Amino acid sequence: MASSIVLYWGSGSPPCWRVQVVLEEKKLQGYQSKLLSFEKGEHKSPEVLAINPRGQLPTFKHGDIVLNESFGACLYLEDVFKSQGVQLMPDDPREKALVLQRMFESDNLTRKIGGIAHYNRDVPENERSDAGLQRLKDGLTTELKIWEGYAEKMGAESFVAGKNFTVADAVIFPVVAILFRLGVSQEKYPHLAAYYSLVKERPSIQATWPPHWKENPNTGDMLKNV
Amino acid sequence: MASSIVLYWGSGSPPCWRVQVVLEEKKLQGYQSKLLSFEKGEHKSPEVLAINPRGQLPTFKHGDIVLNESFGACLYLEDVFKSQGVQLMPDDPREKALVLQRMFESDNLTRKIGGIAHYNRDVPENERSDAGLQRLKDGLTTELKIWEGYAEKMGAESFVAGKNFTVADAVIFPVVAILFRLGVSQEKYPHLAAYYSLVKERPSIQATWPPHWKENPNTGDMLKNV
Repeated sequence: MASSIVLYWGSGSPPCWRVQVVLEEKKLQGYQSKLLSFEKGEHKSPEVLAINPRGQLPTFKHGDIVLNESFGACLYLEDVFKSQGVQLMPDDPREKALVLQRMFESDNLTRKIGGIAHYNRDVPENERSDAGLQRLKDGLTTELKIWEGYAEKMGAESFVAGKNFTVADAVIFPVVAILFRLGVSQEKYPHLAAYYSLVKERPSIQATWPPHWKENPNTGDMLKNV
Repeated sequence: MASSIVLYWGSGSPPCWRVQVVLEEKKLQGYQSKLLSFEKGEHKSPEVLAINPRGQLPTFKHGDIVLNESFGACLYLEDVFKSQGVQLMPDDPREKALVLQRMFESDNLTRKIGGIAHYNRDVPENERSDAGLQRLKDGLTTELKIWEGYAEKMGAESFVAGKNFTVADAVIFPVVAILFRLGVSQEKYPHLAAYYSLVKERPSIQATWPPHWKENPNTGDMLKNV
């Protein structure tokens, strides 16, 4: 079953990482794992573009079913392999609602990080400004306070939507990990940091830790004042 | 049942409109419909902020379950009221995968429209430039060609993910409607225009047509050269 699944992914990309985590949790080891290099532009290769017109990663196939959106791939895998591995979507409507809410609202955080991390790539040099970049950082700080509040409210030893690991954690943990890697202060966001420490040790996370982070565990300071 | 549902929404907002469409399709008329004014800042009112820290619309409640993300609210409603009204998520995994793919990838389109429509709100005057705005428009053109290609491939009289109306249509139709309202040429994107004409007449769409669009049916020309 797993061998009919193909995942094209890039190291350290939260949307890729979340699908990898779901594949681990659903006991789908043995899938075809194709690590591509963003630096070499392999995500724009004919092989990827043939099934993903935007040339983005992840690109995911199950047999000839293609699903390139990470939210979609995660929900699809949970649905098709519902009784296999860890159940990542609760049956209870109330619990499910919170999983969906946290999962989708995480895009606010992901986009704000991306705006800063890709500022030099996305904004031409003559349009860049310290004020423009600072505005993006201020937006991230506001967003981070919301997530720190959520983590505080859930309490210690809690996952993002309750006492069980769910698809919301698969989606959000990689984003939290990148925040701290890029220099966000664990002291300033202690409840998010506690969440990070809790989930970091999970086997599905350890098994999928970005290879280039292992080679270079040094964190940057891009977000140190956020 | 419907009376325990509350939807705070703003006229013409695609994320709000899609939840309204799902409520209609699921025969949940009779929900508490609270139209708020973006102009008056009512989306930042204490009533909304109490359950939605970002002060965004839609804000959705079912009993005391809160779901403010439009994707989440749509999926939740389909799940909880699965056997009521129109089935918006197919059972077949292949069909479901396409619904999820189109649903989530529509965010590319929504964000690109938003970047242009909110350019003057989001970019301070001294950082605005014709080149910056044109870059956003070029990005939208590239994205629109992808959707025009999808519509062409699906063929006439097809919904976005097949022969049946699904949650992907509830999500995407409002975005397509805003494109044409803001001046995108129907001649330039004939297959998307045919899709628009097909879905526009659906009762759930007619019942939820943005009130301020009815008052002012004139389309703008913000996107006429896209």
